[in-house]
Amino acid sequence: MSRLQYMNLKTLYKHIAPEKIILHSNRTTNVRCSRLFSKLSNWGTKKTNTKIKLVYLPEGMADPQTEQILAPLRAAVKKQGDLIRSLKENKGSDIEIKKAVGELKVLKKQLEDKELSLQPPSEIFNRSKFADLMIRRFFYDQSFSIYGGVAGLYDFGPMGCALKSNILEQWKRFFVLEEQMLEIDCSMLTPERVLETSGHVEKFADTMVKDKKTGECFRLDHLIKNRLEALIKDKKTTLEVKEECKDIIIKLDGMTTQQMSDIVNKFNMKSPTTGNDLSEPVDFNLMFATEIGPTGDQKGFLRPETAQGIFVNFKRLLEFNQGRLPFAAAQIGNAFRNEISPRSGLLRVREFTMAEIEHFCDPSDKSHPKFGDMENTTLKLYSACNQMDGKSPVEMTIGQAVSEGLVANQTLGYFMARIHLFMLKIGVTKEKLRFRQHMSNEMAHYAVDCWDAECLTSYGWVECIGCADRSAFDLTRHGEETKQRLVAERKLPAPKTVQVTELEMDKGLIGKTLRKDSKECVDKLSKLSIDEIKQVHDFIDNSTPDPTTGLTLCNIGDKQFQISKNMIPLKSYSKTMHVEEIIPNVIEPSFGIGRIIYTLLEHTFKIREKDEQRTFLSLPPLVAPLKCCILPLLDNDKFTPLVSFISKSLCQKGVSNKIDDSSGSVGRRYARTDEIAVPYCITVDFESLNEPQSVTIRERDSMEQLRIPVPEVVDLVYSLSQDNINWEVAKTKYPKFESQQNE
Amino acid sequence: MSRLQYMNLKTLYKHIAPEKIILHSNRTTNVRCSRLFSKLSNWGTKKTNTKIKLVYLPEGMADPQTEQILAPLRAAVKKQGDLIRSLKENKGSDIEIKKAVGELKVLKKQLEDKELSLQPPSEIFNRSKFADLMIRRFFYDQSFSIYGGVAGLYDFGPMGCALKSNILEQWKRFFVLEEQMLEIDCSMLTPERVLETSGHVEKFADTMVKDKKTGECFRLDHLIKNRLEALIKDKKTTLEVKEECKDIIIKLDGMTTQQMSDIVNKFNMKSPTTGNDLSEPVDFNLMFATEIGPTGDQKGFLRPETAQGIFVNFKRLLEFNQGRLPFAAAQIGNAFRNEISPRSGLLRVREFTMAEIEHFCDPSDKSHPKFGDMENTTLKLYSACNQMDGKSPVEMTIGQAVSEGLVANQTLGYFMARIHLFMLKIGVTKEKLRFRQHMSNEMAHYAVDCWDAECLTSYGWVECIGCADRSAFDLTRHGEETKQRLVAERKLPAPKTVQVTELEMDKGLIGKTLRKDSKECVDKLSKLSIDEIKQVHDFIDNSTPDPTTGLTLCNIGDKQFQISKNMIPLKSYSKTMHVEEIIPNVIEPSFGIGRIIYTLLEHTFKIREKDEQRTFLSLPPLVAPLKCCILPLLDNDKFTPLVSFISKSLCQKGVSNKIDDSSGSVGRRYARTDEIAVPYCITVDFESLNEPQSVTIRERDSMEQLRIPVPEVVDLVYSLSQDNINWEVAKTKYPKFESQQNE
Repeated sequence: MSRLQYMNLKTLYKHIAPEKIILHSNRTTNVRCSRLFSKLSNWGTKKTNTKIKLVYLPEGMADPQTEQILAPLRAAVKKQGDLIRSLKENKGSDIEIKKAVGELKVLKKQLEDKELSLQPPSEIFNRSKFADLMIRRFFYDQSFSIYGGVAGLYDFGPMGCALKSNILEQWKRFFVLEEQMLEIDCSMLTPERVLETSGHVEKFADTMVKDKKTGECFRLDHLIKNRLEALIKDKKTTLEVKEECKDIIIKLDGMTTQQMSDIVNKFNMKSPTTGNDLSEPVDFNLMFATEIGPTGDQKGFLRPETAQGIFVNFKRLLEFNQGRLPFAAAQIGNAFRNEISPRSGLLRVREFTMAEIEHFCDPSDKSHPKFGDMENTTLKLYSACNQMDGKSPVEMTIGQAVSEGLVANQTLGYFMARIHLFMLKIGVTKEKLRFRQHMSNEMAHYAVDCWDAECLTSYGWVECIGCADRSAFDLTRHGEETKQRLVAERKLPAPKTVQVTELEMDKGLIGKTLRKDSKECVDKLSKLSIDEIKQVHDFIDNSTPDPTTGLTLCNIGDKQFQISKNMIPLKSYSKTMHVEEIIPNVIEPSFGIGRIIYTLLEHTFKIREKDEQRTFLSLPPLVAPLKCCILPLLDNDKFTPLVSFISKSLCQKGVSNKIDDSSGSVGRRYARTDEIAVPYCITVDFESLNEPQSVTIRERDSMEQLRIPVPEVVDLVYSLSQDNINWEVAKTKYPKFESQQNE
Repeated sequence: MSRLQYMNLKTLYKHIAPEKIILHSNRTTNVRCSRLFSKLSNWGTKKTNTKIKLVYLPEGMADPQTEQILAPLRAAVKKQGDLIRSLKENKGSDIEIKKAVGELKVLKKQLEDKELSLQPPSEIFNRSKFADLMIRRFFYDQSFSIYGGVAGLYDFGPMGCALKSNILEQWKRFFVLEEQMLEIDCSMLTPERVLETSGHVEKFADTMVKDKKTGECFRLDHLIKNRLEALIKDKKTTLEVKEECKDIIIKLDGMTTQQMSDIVNKFNMKSPTTGNDLSEPVDFNLMFATEIGPTGDQKGFLRPETAQGIFVNFKRLLEFNQGRLPFAAAQIGNAFRNEISPRSGLLRVREFTMAEIEHFCDPSDKSHPKFGDMENTTLKLYSACNQMDGKSPVEMTIGQAVSEGLVANQTLGYFMARIHLFMLKIGVTKEKLRFRQHMSNEMAHYAVDCWDAECLTSYGWVECIGCADRSAFDLTRHGEETKQRLVAERKLPAPKTVQVTELEMDKGLIGKTLRKDSKECVDKLSKLSIDEIKQVHDFIDNSTPDPTTGLTLCNIGDKQFQISKNMIPLKSYSKTMHVEEIIPNVIEPSFGIGRIIYTLLEHTFKIREKDEQRTFLSLPPLVAPLKCCILPLLDNDKFTPLVSFISKSLCQKGVSNKIDDSSGSVGRRYARTDEIAVPYCITVDFESLNEPQSVTIRERDSMEQLRIPVPEVVDLVYSLSQDNINWEVAKTKYPKFESQQNE
């Protein structure tokens, strides 16, 4: 995720209620888990069994009655949107616009809340049961918890790790392989200068205050908002103060540090956990700093995104691609952000895996050769315009969106459609996926257009993937800073003759005349532009040279030297150009893998009808951590050879599998494999031992079973797990098996 | 790689000549490359075209004449080995033993050098051509080089990244999948306490000195050794001083910092690069430090190995495995070491990928259920004994090695055999792979046995994988530190009745009596063992209590409290045990992925006979970055549909491929694909356009070509790249194709 998206994140988090993670490391796992997650989900409350109403707009529109209720809210949003448009047209001041945008956001939030409250709940999400499963079966859990844990750091257990690995594998096939991208793998340790150039050293920061006694830190904007919201709810607060609080919350987003500090003082705000005094606000850079090498003079950071590694390798990559545009490079790897107060589980962490693509293209041609393959793909688009007008997202083909100019160009549109298809492929619920366009005030100044793929979770709509047209910003900055020509060549339609003027220093003459100063003079001269050299010429022409030496004292850079025009003649000639240099533009799809994993786990978490205790994950076979479990019906040595044979044969085909020969009924063992999302169970029973050998295979979601001949079972599971065929097809080929044992 | 192996690394590096990497970022790529690598390979010389004689012992033994020359050297090593054995038997002092071991190493080195010089060169390795290929085709290159680069940080380009990814994929299939290991993925950021427990905070350090003016740092032992070796070579040095230098070099390994400092002063050593004075020696911890969170009071490090993440998750993993031993956990991930002066390219870097396995087993049963599958595997074993006796490595089956007690146990032996097979599978040359046992002084005190898989490269024998039996060290340490029971349960053969004695503190009485001191007293009491409580009882029995209170002043931990026996009664009862608790032992195979990649690239680097300019990499298809290249014979639109069709079909099968439709003869394009190790090229020629359609397929190593019907070519390339069939088999099925164009 780029800095651009980081700015967007800041906005996003405003909509997530603050939580604190407190770990109790010395309790038994189950107690600790439920405590941890109750804290996570219900900060400030004592509920432990959370059921969260998950609501999203269904296909089509709401009924007329609902629309009637929403109409005034929609109108209020639209009116405010129009105000902003007119302010912009009439060059309103920044502060006026910022305030108006802040008010727009509040109105949008009111509309969204109302919309949600009027919809019938489409689903109840039981977050405590979900969290229990995640931790009990070690999908993921807090790192170092035997040592008390560290907020914002998570370990993936065997199932989480396999899921992650499968998602990344599919990602590589879907993007890198199919698009012939150049995948690279760069260092995480990054020297300071690189991140100065990218802007991270200066701008990648949040403002915080500290508890003067305990040193506990709080993000300043969160602190103010939470305190004022509490005041608004407090019955003792006067109406006048309530209005003031509301006004401040609206304007908070655009405030300077000083303004926020004044508010802290005015309301005499204290530490929310201890009531102690607070320090003055300080900017806290979110990068982890370290020193590279033993001398202590080479400052470095852990990269906050993987993108910079691609930009600094641009020249090598272009060369690898034989100098041709467009091409895309990709990188999967970890990045780090020293969040002030990490929360929301995997959604906001200090160490995370990203997958980023940088598609380099000609700035004047952002068409995409494969756009035709995608143009009929329908996406749910939430345009900036609709956001300002109080309207809902709209279903539209990407072809239409690009041709209408809603999405800036084909390449951006192509990637959005590909992202949409990828997310569905790995199992994200279609209705819970939308693309939200950044409003102009959310985007970095250099960005042309930016769309976030957002997923609906129990924490609200969460940005999982950013997809931005970053123009030529990054390569331009790194090129300027390093004096490297980070450019590509574009063939001219016809050769062009241009007039070239070059400085031809007479270094011999300079050396002879200036002696020990000559090197410095040459260095400074070579940094001047042709226009500046011309100015020096003019200066010499208009001055009286030293009569003995014939030289003139001139300013060269920040110093003065005695020189003559002979030392710095300009040469002009005409040159025929066949190519011109361009700085490529960059389209950047940037995937937050941890967020995608979390979303996917929420979307596929299910509870069996009629049995609240049986939870399972309906992950698609393609990404399920284990594809298959092999169960002997009973703990009996007779079954062992066939069980091992099937397991080995699956391994040879690369199909991950597990033997579950633990005690317990088959039904109980099925339930256990359901919890870790195993899509297929092969059961070896007494019938399996008779010729012709056969086994049963059970599908997780439907719990249906088929009877399969042993020689065919490995190929069948392989094909099912590769998505080459699906269960419905398998059912047409093999007889149904009715279990003696009820599940 | 664990701390244990780190200690071994220290030894290893003594045999690698020191080099310095100086980067010239503003030159064109080719100039920079050859400069960089000439520095790398020939520090202190001006040669740029390095050919390195790579010598290794062939199968069987050397001829009798050679053995005659080596005999006295072998005898000298053996004599020294015997001396060490007798010193150990007779409990010689540590210093005596250390000195003797140091001398043994020098004698071993002399023997090895002589052996090498007497062997006919089996191969010439042209390191400058190799380095040129690596950088020109961007397999890997220094990170951030447009910013001047950072020593010890490397980026993998598209081909290096794909190779790495394929090696890791094979590793997962070979180890994780086949052995049903529990793969996890833990945080790299690690809080200080974890690494204090593991010993890294205290011991993971090198001693260095600084140039007082420039601040440049030097590893102290390297500095001394290099300086003394220069003195020995200097004709002006007296014989007496030369002898003293030799003596110091021998003893250097066992010296204290003070002793080394005295040597620096005695020989008046200066900075080798500037001649400036040097600072006092300081210990430099090799971990990268940072701060987690904004408060500044949570110190953390980037992990120096991945192993600790597995140990701290032991409880969760055991639970996931339903409490059963043995099981293995695995982790692939990056680790970091802030080397004082990184060198030798990918062999010694600051950020690297490791793959580690921790196999947890019952300390009393280190047999392995699948050892039978491996026992006939023959490895080249270089035992500690043979190293001490001046003998060469010996070929032996792992079954024999374990049954003779040379390898400590079946599990260790099983992994060594699996490592051997894995390395051959990915393409390491068998003759350049050996297992070297650690001598007792190389091993950490807790290790039972340790074998390094070493590969011969142009830098000498390089440790790529460590395989150690670490006993119960790690779990014991973390368990003690966190007061968690990091144990497993072992079923007793029969229930056992045991007498249990427990402390039953009367906290009410303590509280009432000691009031504000009671909490501290209870804390300290709970840290005492039962025996220590008994001692307190005895003390009270033998003392005169305070007449008014009836209490006795006792030492509890490091404080004194007025207590009585009533407060701390001991309760004894008998208990029937069905299980006993054990701390599992750990067998740890630890893979340095960067070193394996480097070794593999060196081992597969080839130069075509009769054409010195044509270099290629004979990587096995299984790990080759791209499996296939598709070439239209000419730049002609007629070929495009078939070329795209084949490429798409390959993608659908997951076979990585590339279309090379650039200009240039087919022969030239073949040469280019050879350089990036593409094993198979499909060429679409004019004949391909006629029915029945067919294409040619060319194999990289043999340059042979076959004619294949189009409908079969995708399956054929898939099978070849999966190692399901090999080229020799393919040749029996399809007609040979003689190219019109000579390569």
